[in-house]
Amino acid sequence: MNATTVTLTGEFFIAGERRGTGETFHAYDPARGASIEGIGFFSATDQDVADACAAAENAAISYADLPLERRAAFLETIASEIEALGDALLTRACAESGLPLARITGERGRTCGQLRLFAAEVRDGQWLKLRIDHADPARTPPKPDLRLRMIPLGPVAVFGASNFPLAFSTAGGDTASALAAGCPVVVKGHPAHPGTAELVAGAITRAAAHTGMPAGVFSLVTGTGNAIGAALVADPRIQAVGFTGSRSGGEALMKIAAARPQPIPVYAEMSAINPVILLPAALAARSESLAAGFVGSLTMGSGQFCTNPGLVLALEGAGLDAFLGEAGRLVEAQNPQTMLTAGIHSAYEKGSAALAATPEVQTIARGIHPTGPHEGRAALFSVTAADWLARSELQHEVFGASSIVVRCADREELLAVLRGLEGQLTATLHMDKADLVDARALLPLLERRVGRILANGWPTGVEVTHAINHGGPYPATSDGRTTSVGTLAIDRFLRPVAYQDIPDALLPDALRDGHQPGVLARIDGAWHLA
Amino acid sequence: MNATTVTLTGEFFIAGERRGTGETFHAYDPARGASIEGIGFFSATDQDVADACAAAENAAISYADLPLERRAAFLETIASEIEALGDALLTRACAESGLPLARITGERGRTCGQLRLFAAEVRDGQWLKLRIDHADPARTPPKPDLRLRMIPLGPVAVFGASNFPLAFSTAGGDTASALAAGCPVVVKGHPAHPGTAELVAGAITRAAAHTGMPAGVFSLVTGTGNAIGAALVADPRIQAVGFTGSRSGGEALMKIAAARPQPIPVYAEMSAINPVILLPAALAARSESLAAGFVGSLTMGSGQFCTNPGLVLALEGAGLDAFLGEAGRLVEAQNPQTMLTAGIHSAYEKGSAALAATPEVQTIARGIHPTGPHEGRAALFSVTAADWLARSELQHEVFGASSIVVRCADREELLAVLRGLEGQLTATLHMDKADLVDARALLPLLERRVGRILANGWPTGVEVTHAINHGGPYPATSDGRTTSVGTLAIDRFLRPVAYQDIPDALLPDALRDGHQPGVLARIDGAWHLA
Repeated sequence: MNATTVTLTGEFFIAGERRGTGETFHAYDPARGASIEGIGFFSATDQDVADACAAAENAAISYADLPLERRAAFLETIASEIEALGDALLTRACAESGLPLARITGERGRTCGQLRLFAAEVRDGQWLKLRIDHADPARTPPKPDLRLRMIPLGPVAVFGASNFPLAFSTAGGDTASALAAGCPVVVKGHPAHPGTAELVAGAITRAAAHTGMPAGVFSLVTGTGNAIGAALVADPRIQAVGFTGSRSGGEALMKIAAARPQPIPVYAEMSAINPVILLPAALAARSESLAAGFVGSLTMGSGQFCTNPGLVLALEGAGLDAFLGEAGRLVEAQNPQTMLTAGIHSAYEKGSAALAATPEVQTIARGIHPTGPHEGRAALFSVTAADWLARSELQHEVFGASSIVVRCADREELLAVLRGLEGQLTATLHMDKADLVDARALLPLLERRVGRILANGWPTGVEVTHAINHGGPYPATSDGRTTSVGTLAIDRFLRPVAYQDIPDALLPDALRDGHQPGVLARIDGAWHLA
Repeated sequence: MNATTVTLTGEFFIAGERRGTGETFHAYDPARGASIEGIGFFSATDQDVADACAAAENAAISYADLPLERRAAFLETIASEIEALGDALLTRACAESGLPLARITGERGRTCGQLRLFAAEVRDGQWLKLRIDHADPARTPPKPDLRLRMIPLGPVAVFGASNFPLAFSTAGGDTASALAAGCPVVVKGHPAHPGTAELVAGAITRAAAHTGMPAGVFSLVTGTGNAIGAALVADPRIQAVGFTGSRSGGEALMKIAAARPQPIPVYAEMSAINPVILLPAALAARSESLAAGFVGSLTMGSGQFCTNPGLVLALEGAGLDAFLGEAGRLVEAQNPQTMLTAGIHSAYEKGSAALAATPEVQTIARGIHPTGPHEGRAALFSVTAADWLARSELQHEVFGASSIVVRCADREELLAVLRGLEGQLTATLHMDKADLVDARALLPLLERRVGRILANGWPTGVEVTHAINHGGPYPATSDGRTTSVGTLAIDRFLRPVAYQDIPDALLPDALRDGHQPGVLARIDGAWHLA
C-alpha cells in the first residue's frame, strides 16, 4: 500500500483533480464528543458543483459508449482500490461514525462485494433489454425494422448516507448501480464523514485513471449545509438523484427536482417503521426466543438501520404478555451505544421522550443509562391498537433503537392497524403452521404496503443479491417502483431508445443481428439466451 | 350484434353500472361545426369519481390475484366486444372527431390488436421479473431464501386523448397496459368524444361481466372542465396516471400528483416537434422524393399526431433549395382538413399565425384556404439556424400540419440546433452511404434527446410491438424512462416485492421452485426459460 493514498488533504475531487480553498470544517467523533483535529475539510462552492456537473456531462457519452467489459473492470478496480486503503479507511470510518470496527469491516466487505456484483451485472447485460422486431415489407402497411436497448440517463447525483459511511455513501449502492448503468456520478459527501468520503473518492479516482475512464465519470463535492446538495440537484446536467436519509431531506430533494425546467427522477430511501407481526401460534410457542430475536434486531448498531423494527403487532393475551416481559428485561439490560451524529442522537432523544410523554403510550423498558456523549438508550413502548389508530403521529419513525408494541384486541384491530399504515420497506410475519390461514389473509394487504415480506426472521440485514427489494411505497421511498439494493437497482438509471430501420453500420453493436453474446434478447417477441 | 349494445344513454359507468343525473352536455361534430343533437351526456360528480376509485380499490387485490390466463381472456374479450359494436362505433367516432372512416377503421384495428398483444404479453409473463435466490445456511451469516416478483401498483387513472378516440382513449394503450399489469382502471373520457367513450366503456363493461372480473376493474367518468380529472388524480386510491395530450394538461396533472400526501407517478405523453435531419448526400440525391414523403407525413390526419415532423434540419445549398421548392408546391396543393376540435383548430390558427408574423420566419407555403368550419390549413415555414437559436419559442409545438425548416450554414450550426433541442419523441435521419460519417457523429447526441431514432422514414406511424419506444425525455413525456406504446408499456404499472424465507405454502405460485411455466426467471443469478 502506498502511503500517499491514505493521507487526507481535506480536498474534494472534481473530475480526477483534488480541489478546495477557503474556510474548512472539521469532522466530529461522536464517541469522544469532540471534533477530530488535524485536517480541515473544504466546502465546495456553486462553481465547484457546476464544474463537477459539466465534467460529468462531458464524460456522459464517452463513458456510456465504452465496451461493457471496461465498465465492469472499472467497478472491480474501485473495489480493489478501496481494499488497498487498508486499516486507514476502517479507522477513519469508525472515528467519524462511532460504529465499531467489526461493523465497519463488514460494511467494507459489503461495499466491495456490491461493486463486484454490479461488475458481473454489467457483463450479464440483460438490463440492456435488447429487443429486435424484424421488418416485414410484405405487410400492409410495410412493417419497419425496430430495435430497442436501454441507455444511461446521464449524470447522476448521489447523496452519502450518515448511517452507512461505506455501503450507502461515496462508493455505495447508488454510485455502483449508476456507474454500472453507464452514468457519470457526482457524489455529495455526507458532512458526518468527510475523511471517509475523501479516502473512498481517492480510490474511485485512482480506479478511473488506472482503467482509462473519462475524468468526469466521478466527482465528490463536500461541505456542510444544504446549499451544495440543492445546487447539485438543480443543475440542468444532472438527470437523476440517489439518496438515503431522512424523510424531510428526501422530500426537499423531490421538491427541487420537480421544480426544475426539466423534472428528474429522485430515488430517495427515506423512512420506515417496518412492522413485525407476531401471529398467535408462534407467539404461544416461543415468546422468549421471539423477544430475544426482536431485541437483537432492534438494538443492533444502536437501531440506526432503515429496516429497524419500530413496530410490533400482536393480539392481546398471555403470549404477548410473556413477549413484552422478556423483551422488556432484555431492553433494560442493553448497554447504550454511540449514535452516528450529535443531531441523530438529539432527534432520537426527542422522539423517544415524546413517545414516553404520550399519555396513551406505556413505557415498557429503557436500556441502561448512557454515560458517553452521544449514546442512545434503547426504548420499548406499548400502546393499544385503538389508541394507535387514534394518533397518526405514532407512525412517525424514531430513528434509533426505539419500538412500539401495538396490542390488538382481535384480528379486526390488527387488520385496521395494517390498513392504516403508510408505505414500508419491510413487513415481517412470525408464524407457525397453525398461523398459515392468518398469514395468508394478511399477505395481499402487506404486498400492497411494503417492499419486502419476511417470515420468521428480522428485517435488519438486507441481502445484496438479485431477488432483493430494498424499496417500498411512499414514504418508505420516493419511488416504490424501484430498489436501492441488489442488481435490479441498475434499472433506475436507464431509459429505452428504439432504432427504426437504422442501417447495420450505424446500429449499436449489441443490436445487430447475431451480436448479443452473453445477453438475453427478445427477438420477434421470443426470448433468446445467447 | 345486439342493438342494445350500441344505443347511447349519455351515462357513464361506475363498476359495471350505468350512472348519470342532472345537466348534460352535447358532443360536437367539427366537420359540420355543430353540436350533435339527440343524446346528452352527464357529467360525473366528485362523488361519482370517489365511487369509481373506491370500487377500483376494492377490486385491486382480487383482480391482481386472478390467474394470468383469465386476465388475458378479459383483454381479448374487450377486443371482440369492441369489434361487435360494428359500424355504430365507427360512425360515432368519425362524427365526434372529424376523422375519416378509413382512419377510424384502422384505429379500431390498432386498438383491438393492441389489446390482443397485451393479452399475449400477460401470458408471456416475463414482466413478472421472477427472481429466486436460494438460501445458503452454511454461509456466515446464513444467506436467506429470497424471491421477487413484480406486482401491480393498484388503481390507475387513464385520460382519453383527443387525437386518438380509440387507440389512446377508453380502451387504448394506457388502459390495455394497466389492465395487463393487473391494475383496475378509471378512465376520464375526453369530452370531445363522449359517445365513442360510452360505446367502448360499454364493451369493456360487458367483457368484464362475461369473463367474471370484479366489477370495479373498470369505470368511465365523463364531463367537461378540469375538475373531474383533478379529483381523479388527487384521489388517494389512484396509484398512477396515464395521459396523452398537451404539455399544459400533462404538467397540471404532474403538479396534482406531486402535491398528494402520497405522490404518484404520472405517465404523460405531451409535446414534441420530432426533428427530421436531411443529410447532404441524401438531399442531393432525392430532394423531390424527400419533399413528397415529408409533406405526406406532415399533413396526414391534419398533422394531429404526437410524432408529426414539426422541424426539418438541413445544410444550406442547392439540395435544400430544391427540397423547399418542391415541399412548398406540395403544401400549396394540400386540401384543408377538419381538425379534431374547435379548440385545437383555434390553437393551430394562432400558432401558425404567430410563426408567420415572426420577422425572422419566412412563410414558404400555406395549403388551400379552408371552407369548412374547423379546417386546418397546412403551413411550411423556414428560418436560419442563427435565428432559430436566438428564439427559443420557435421550439414550441404547433399541434397540426405546421413545420419549420431550419437552414444551417454548416455542420456546427446543425449540431448547435440539436444540442439546444428539448426532449423529443423521435428524430429522423435521411441519409445515403456518403452520409454515414455525419450520421454516426449525430447518433449519440440524438440518443440523449429522443425516444426513437429513424433512418430514411417518417416519424408518423408508431408500430405497436416489442421493440418500439413511444416516449422520450422531458417535455416529450413526463417520464422518459417509459413508453406508452408497445409491450414495454406494462412495466409502468408494476413494482417489485421480495419474499424472504416465506414458506412454500404461502408463496405466490409463480415463485415456488419449478412453477415458472412459460415464464422467464432468474434463478441464483442465472437466466432460465421454461
